[in-house]
Amino acid sequence: MAAESLRELFIEELRDMYDGEKQLTRALSKMAKAAASEELRTAFANHHDETEEQISRLQQIFRSIGETVRGKKCDGIQGIVEESKPAMEELEGALLDAALIAGAQKVEHYEIASYGTLAYFAELLGENTARQLLGRTLEEEKAADEKLTQIAKSKVNREALLTVGNEEEE
Amino acid sequence: MAAESLRELFIEELRDMYDGEKQLTRALSKMAKAAASEELRTAFANHHDETEEQISRLQQIFRSIGETVRGKKCDGIQGIVEESKPAMEELEGALLDAALIAGAQKVEHYEIASYGTLAYFAELLGENTARQLLGRTLEEEKAADEKLTQIAKSKVNREALLTVGNEEEE
Repeated sequence: MAAESLRELFIEELRDMYDGEKQLTRALSKMAKAAASEELRTAFANHHDETEEQISRLQQIFRSIGETVRGKKCDGIQGIVEESKPAMEELEGALLDAALIAGAQKVEHYEIASYGTLAYFAELLGENTARQLLGRTLEEEKAADEKLTQIAKSKVNREALLTVGNEEEE
Repeated sequence: MAAESLRELFIEELRDMYDGEKQLTRALSKMAKAAASEELRTAFANHHDETEEQISRLQQIFRSIGETVRGKKCDGIQGIVEESKPAMEELEGALLDAALIAGAQKVEHYEIASYGTLAYFAELLGENTARQLLGRTLEEEKAADEKLTQIAKSKVNREALLTVGNEEEE
């Protein structure tokens, strides 16, 4: 790291998210394939496409501040994505979907925190193009999180409870 | 994993957070020692104590649903905590504090996502004691996140900009 200014810290954090988003496009492809319900498959596929746009937006941000487009391994997103793997291998149906949504919401919240910090750093640094682009991505991540809550609450979690059964009642 | 019901998924997620919170008490001790400003040191120290109460609360939840108190390695929080280490080794002053706050807010958001899911699973499962305790922790995590935003915006990030300087202006 060895950042010597807020600007360097901002760039480090951008690189973290650039790598994180790339990891996510791969994870979201797998999650879209794995999801049991049509609605969740579509939500993951849509957010995959949105994530690709967010990657282009990060490239635009690097260029707007005169920095090389480069990622740096994002341990946070790697850890969260890692946690979703057993679910994809071992679960199915509504229970798999409930686990996938829980994991995806952790990723969304990681991104909400990160883009919130980045947008504020950009504002302090007077990087207005970056601030606007980061603000747009931040709103998309919040919307993606809300969409997942809505899918979970409208259908998936109740089905997970009903179709697989609550052992306590057996 | 191999959860076969929503109840088992709930227990898996509780174990994830039980380990995550334990990792966090260690990380928060280090962050409280490392922080440059008195206000941030106090905030981390207070949240450390709050985290210990949240661990007791998780033990209470395990008992309320008749399950063994046990953790399971939380890769998500481990990854996020890992990301904060270079900052603690290499940065100082307001810049270190800005980096620590950015990392801590990622942790808070991971927890907000996780406790949000857990509280909803508890509700579906009719585990009312668990639901109430999880709801209380969820509110504490949201308050901790807001406190960090407030510290960052009121002082730390502006100082990080001013005291260390913005290289672009050099």
